[in-house]
Amino acid sequence: MPDHEFALSTPLDVRLGQTDPKDTAFPLRWGILGAGNVSRQWALSLLGVPGATLTAVAARDKDRADAFAANLDVTRSFASYEAMVADEDVDIVYVGTKTWLHKEHTLLALHAGKHVMCEKPLASNAAEAAEMYASAADRGVMLLDGMWTRFFPAIEHARTLIHDGAIGEPLMVHADFFDPIYVIQVAPLAFGYEQAPSSIVTGGRAASAAILDYEGNHAAVLSFPPFNSELPEVTEIFGTQGRISLGRPGHCPTELTLHAPRVGGVPSQYRTNNEPAPQHRFHYPLPANVSIPSAFPNQHGFLYQAEAVHRCLAAGLVECPQYTQAESMHCMHIWTDIMRQKAAAANA
Amino acid sequence: MPDHEFALSTPLDVRLGQTDPKDTAFPLRWGILGAGNVSRQWALSLLGVPGATLTAVAARDKDRADAFAANLDVTRSFASYEAMVADEDVDIVYVGTKTWLHKEHTLLALHAGKHVMCEKPLASNAAEAAEMYASAADRGVMLLDGMWTRFFPAIEHARTLIHDGAIGEPLMVHADFFDPIYVIQVAPLAFGYEQAPSSIVTGGRAASAAILDYEGNHAAVLSFPPFNSELPEVTEIFGTQGRISLGRPGHCPTELTLHAPRVGGVPSQYRTNNEPAPQHRFHYPLPANVSIPSAFPNQHGFLYQAEAVHRCLAAGLVECPQYTQAESMHCMHIWTDIMRQKAAAANA
Repeated sequence: MPDHEFALSTPLDVRLGQTDPKDTAFPLRWGILGAGNVSRQWALSLLGVPGATLTAVAARDKDRADAFAANLDVTRSFASYEAMVADEDVDIVYVGTKTWLHKEHTLLALHAGKHVMCEKPLASNAAEAAEMYASAADRGVMLLDGMWTRFFPAIEHARTLIHDGAIGEPLMVHADFFDPIYVIQVAPLAFGYEQAPSSIVTGGRAASAAILDYEGNHAAVLSFPPFNSELPEVTEIFGTQGRISLGRPGHCPTELTLHAPRVGGVPSQYRTNNEPAPQHRFHYPLPANVSIPSAFPNQHGFLYQAEAVHRCLAAGLVECPQYTQAESMHCMHIWTDIMRQKAAAANA
Repeated sequence: MPDHEFALSTPLDVRLGQTDPKDTAFPLRWGILGAGNVSRQWALSLLGVPGATLTAVAARDKDRADAFAANLDVTRSFASYEAMVADEDVDIVYVGTKTWLHKEHTLLALHAGKHVMCEKPLASNAAEAAEMYASAADRGVMLLDGMWTRFFPAIEHARTLIHDGAIGEPLMVHADFFDPIYVIQVAPLAFGYEQAPSSIVTGGRAASAAILDYEGNHAAVLSFPPFNSELPEVTEIFGTQGRISLGRPGHCPTELTLHAPRVGGVPSQYRTNNEPAPQHRFHYPLPANVSIPSAFPNQHGFLYQAEAVHRCLAAGLVECPQYTQAESMHCMHIWTDIMRQKAAAANA
């Protein structure tokens, strides 16, 4: 069982010839909207991007905004979101406020002509998200869903392996995490997002799990327990010829194991043989040029998405192929359906 | 992360003071009904039980029965099931035929006054299983559901840990395996079987996954993909204070990892801290006195259940506490409901 250091040095947009790795130096002046912990972590990740400048921060509470600015060498601080998005020295706004404020704050920044990267989930429901994307399209600016998971090399490698047929036809995915939007995105990662699920059933503690059925006999078994616990954080994608197992934490993995088929193309399963499948384990060391104290695990992996934003905007792209607007909407529709079923279960 | 050799030398029935370990020497003369591969493996596992004698084998095909008997030193071979169960030198019959024949063959043996151990699933549906148990009760003999998983030391240890509160209150289980009855039994292992699930929803490829909702906010997320693949074989039981992760193969595990809570009783989860929970990994070496060539992995773990049958019958028990008739019926009801939904999906 060899262990591999696997440096996937070419992100998807670079591999597709859409962007240039050097364009992480493309200058973007960032305004941070919301001065909470996730905003702090995003701001710290920007310190690792050569072209990024922390220009402004805004919070309703002036003291919080000032403290955030002082801590992180942000040039200006605002107690008014409106004033910050009007700042001519801000190119792109990071929206790090609460989910139910994402739409309001994103539209505020878009209306001021700024690019926006908004934390996940993008909005409170799919209809809001569609309205936000339409607003960005009207102005020709970027609106990026902050699904940072998709920018990790382990995920990019998983996508490549699936595309190259390393596990044959993907048939089923398993994923769990307390935040459903993270586990939902695993389904289109494996199966694509051209078709909506043909059915979604939820169950468990006030709908804490869901089974997604896709055309072509694909199924996603997702679990998002709402209680504090030590979660399995499994992300498994398995198909006709093998299985991809992402390392923990499943939403920001730095490890991938490919359980490859046996020689002769027969998948290893206890029905057909007595030996475990050959395993290939790959490691993807996190960026060393960023460190985020007191963060969740692997939080400095934010850097991967931050770099992509610079590369893509340098190339004139307002979408990232790692997580397009269409895919984001696909996930928002599923999330909205699950939330609807969850609300119905809670009120039953 | 210490690794422990954990020799759980006291099976549940012994711990409960119901049986004596020495009673594996209690004499039982076995008749094997069905001469297929699983019967062969069961017969080989009996070679490791001091009190077991392979007295008879029966198959509809005389040549198959004779070959089986010659291979395994079985005293007599029959081409008639009726003749074998009438043999006065047979104390207990192992039913290893196809599922749809389990009821017929089990009743045949019970009517002849024999104890019966029947391969899982016990019957084609819960109604059949109830009829079979009633027949065994009428005669005061054992009818044991062949859920060998439950007799593995790793499972006995999991049960003990749950009982002792090592993971707090169990809230959710995840399990997958191609045979649904194996993953179903994980739910009552964690939550007990006093109450039926309050709801069962299925989904996926012709209902290849199910979510079981139990009173008290317990939920089981089960997946039983019907295609050949390298399955994850996850068995996870997680609660308010930690998690039990059974090793692969999940249906016959020889390893258990306890992800214990942090000091102070706070469960380790990314919401509340940045360090992984302390892990305690336990190994349970398989019995060395049995070896089964060309078998599925860990198949010689059949021995654990074989030994229990001898111990329990020696003590006059017609049930094993590792998997009582009530628990078997609990699982049969869930299985029947899932099969019903699966048939409905296939016909939709």
